[in-house]
Amino acid sequence: MYTLYEMALSGNCYKCRLALQQLGIPYERVAVDVSGGEQYRAPFRQMNLNSKVPVLKISETEALPESNAILFFLAERSRLMPQASLARAQVMQWLFFEQYSHEPYIATVRFWKKFTANPDAYRADIARCMPKGEKALAVMNEHLGQHIFFVDNQYSIADIALYAYTHVAEEGGYQLSRYPAVQAWLRRVEQTPGFVPITA
Amino acid sequence: MYTLYEMALSGNCYKCRLALQQLGIPYERVAVDVSGGEQYRAPFRQMNLNSKVPVLKISETEALPESNAILFFLAERSRLMPQASLARAQVMQWLFFEQYSHEPYIATVRFWKKFTANPDAYRADIARCMPKGEKALAVMNEHLGQHIFFVDNQYSIADIALYAYTHVAEEGGYQLSRYPAVQAWLRRVEQTPGFVPITA
Repeated sequence: MYTLYEMALSGNCYKCRLALQQLGIPYERVAVDVSGGEQYRAPFRQMNLNSKVPVLKISETEALPESNAILFFLAERSRLMPQASLARAQVMQWLFFEQYSHEPYIATVRFWKKFTANPDAYRADIARCMPKGEKALAVMNEHLGQHIFFVDNQYSIADIALYAYTHVAEEGGYQLSRYPAVQAWLRRVEQTPGFVPITA
Repeated sequence: MYTLYEMALSGNCYKCRLALQQLGIPYERVAVDVSGGEQYRAPFRQMNLNSKVPVLKISETEALPESNAILFFLAERSRLMPQASLARAQVMQWLFFEQYSHEPYIATVRFWKKFTANPDAYRADIARCMPKGEKALAVMNEHLGQHIFFVDNQYSIADIALYAYTHVAEEGGYQLSRYPAVQAWLRRVEQTPGFVPITA
């Protein structure tokens, strides 16, 4: 059985749980003491030299880091990944958009505002990041004005990856009411079979 | 025939050219006037709402953004992608490492130092980014101390993606002599069949 090494309220970890649940794959959860620095020490670091959660332990000797690589591993040959070559690459397009243009601005601001003792200490970082987070939400809103789901109007791991931090973006101070097509898409994701919330 | 919309000295664009060349896929190049803001206007923006190069135009109506999604599209069923499920996901792991933990610190510092009129204006950004770039190089160096190429000791798009900005990291002030396993791997990449330099 797979084991997910994670931090429960991390969107990157939640992505993996949502895909595992929707694909009906049994797994166990292990909480990593991130605030205590467990990720920088053995044995965690032997699973991921880059010292980040989540990691999916696949066997005694095999472990896979990077949330979106875990999504790809779980879904490559499933209904959560399209069949056609270009559509598969478009799923990857949105996964890379999520990690490069979205997560560094939406997840980080949420982290500073919700999970640190003194968010004011991050005021300059928050000011630097929020315009880029707004841009990411605007790109999503424009795309979702024309599409039910991100790729081929079919629910995929692209939707799972982007749902994870978008649906909690308001915890970082983003106003999702400015992005109505994003809000409508969030509700569609929540109605997919086997959906579980981040708190599950 | 494919058309690559690009900026020649961008590592993200070079990745695509290197893969196209090594896979023997004919293509045309079109330079995008990034400093003039062409990426924010139609028709470019219709190909990529996120206004970034590169974009691979595949047909009159189909275009694919995101350098690493382009690598996946070109290579999914080629010798530049392994066959086994976990190895394929490990290629994705390193592609996401590249876009999340490497490019934002190594490519950006190079850009500020080499391509802006007044790098001193970015002194605070450079100071914030360089420790994270050093961490990425250290992770690569530790992994490459045990592996010929990133995944399964077989040259893949993971190597192409990470070569692109690593081999020019010194243009941003990183000292690659601190990372001998990285330096040896750069030379191995340069000996692969069909290799072309960023200036080609």
